[in-house]
Amino acid sequence: MNAKQLAAEQAVEHINDGMIVGLGTGSTAYWAIRSLAEKVSEGLRIRAVASSIQSEDLAKQLGIPLIPFSELEEIDMTIDGADEVDADLNLIKGGGGALLREKILAANSKRLIIIVDESKRVERLGAFPLPVEIVPFAANLTIRRLERLQGKPQIRLANGEPFITDNGNWIADCSFGPIADPAQLHLQLNMIPGVVDNGLFVQMAHQVVVGYNDGTVKIINSR
Amino acid sequence: MNAKQLAAEQAVEHINDGMIVGLGTGSTAYWAIRSLAEKVSEGLRIRAVASSIQSEDLAKQLGIPLIPFSELEEIDMTIDGADEVDADLNLIKGGGGALLREKILAANSKRLIIIVDESKRVERLGAFPLPVEIVPFAANLTIRRLERLQGKPQIRLANGEPFITDNGNWIADCSFGPIADPAQLHLQLNMIPGVVDNGLFVQMAHQVVVGYNDGTVKIINSR
Repeated sequence: MNAKQLAAEQAVEHINDGMIVGLGTGSTAYWAIRSLAEKVSEGLRIRAVASSIQSEDLAKQLGIPLIPFSELEEIDMTIDGADEVDADLNLIKGGGGALLREKILAANSKRLIIIVDESKRVERLGAFPLPVEIVPFAANLTIRRLERLQGKPQIRLANGEPFITDNGNWIADCSFGPIADPAQLHLQLNMIPGVVDNGLFVQMAHQVVVGYNDGTVKIINSR
Repeated sequence: MNAKQLAAEQAVEHINDGMIVGLGTGSTAYWAIRSLAEKVSEGLRIRAVASSIQSEDLAKQLGIPLIPFSELEEIDMTIDGADEVDADLNLIKGGGGALLREKILAANSKRLIIIVDESKRVERLGAFPLPVEIVPFAANLTIRRLERLQGKPQIRLANGEPFITDNGNWIADCSFGPIADPAQLHLQLNMIPGVVDNGLFVQMAHQVVVGYNDGTVKIINSR
């Protein structure tokens, strides 16, 4: 069992009958969805919502019951991966491009559990490029503002064209270097007209489950 | 000449040769575009960008040269209308649904001139519903957060379906009542994951030109 799968299986232990569960996106969330499906097949009664079409399709395929968004009031627990986790459990997410939907689910969850392998733990966020979701309209004006913040923005491409998010926007991958104050940068970015949201998840995670290659798992709770 | 037209003609006097001009959207901006086109036909050399497909079409039709967004670095002056203007020149905009594009242009303009008729001046913002642009994904979670802020959100409809903005989003028209602190509300709204932007324009206008039904015009400069 790999480190991601280990962390995923540990996280899924928290899920109880009757819960509404938010499903993340990406290679670690994949293992959580697989593991959850197994528990459902064994009789666990939950309903889920997914942060991407990709995860929704996977959940359907594996027989996890989905709740329509129109009936959704609150999520009991969301399990998702991350690209970086710092010592305060602040995160960079969005390498897979689903940061906005993931953040909406996270912000409306009573508990957010993040599962990562050991390679994602960092002293300070920022080695991983920070994804910033921007509206395509007048994008070069928005990009210029990201440049002024020293973000060295690069529009993410797919087949030579701007990558389009599930919300019809673009991603500017920014290299700020080590991020001294994630809360402040998060605010600065989101106050730029044209920025929809960014991949910083500040003080949102309640618990981080880290899987190690030696087969151990470490659980870190938020303070 | 009506009060809107009066204000528009006054504002257009500020435009000089060589400028890049941002064009607003709505019934007052319409008069500014008309007036600008007249000056262009008389020899004024400017290039323009529009905040909506509607205004872009009008500009083209009237022979105003447009600059492609890809070539745009900064806007010298944007002229636009507003739904409400308070004594500090804070605005509510977005009755027409173009608030995000209008805000992107305004934020990247050296000068923002707002043209209104006298009916738009208020002591305190908030009698006009505040438009909040939200992503359609899990919209009822975002709406619930607006409700918690006492915004009484109503999804704007068109032909019985949610109205879709030029950016593919929805508008929640919110009734907060008199807004005591526009800057704070603006921040609270934009920090909600799922909110793209909102119709509060705080300390963005450099000048407001007010047209009166008695044929006079009043110019108010920001402090």
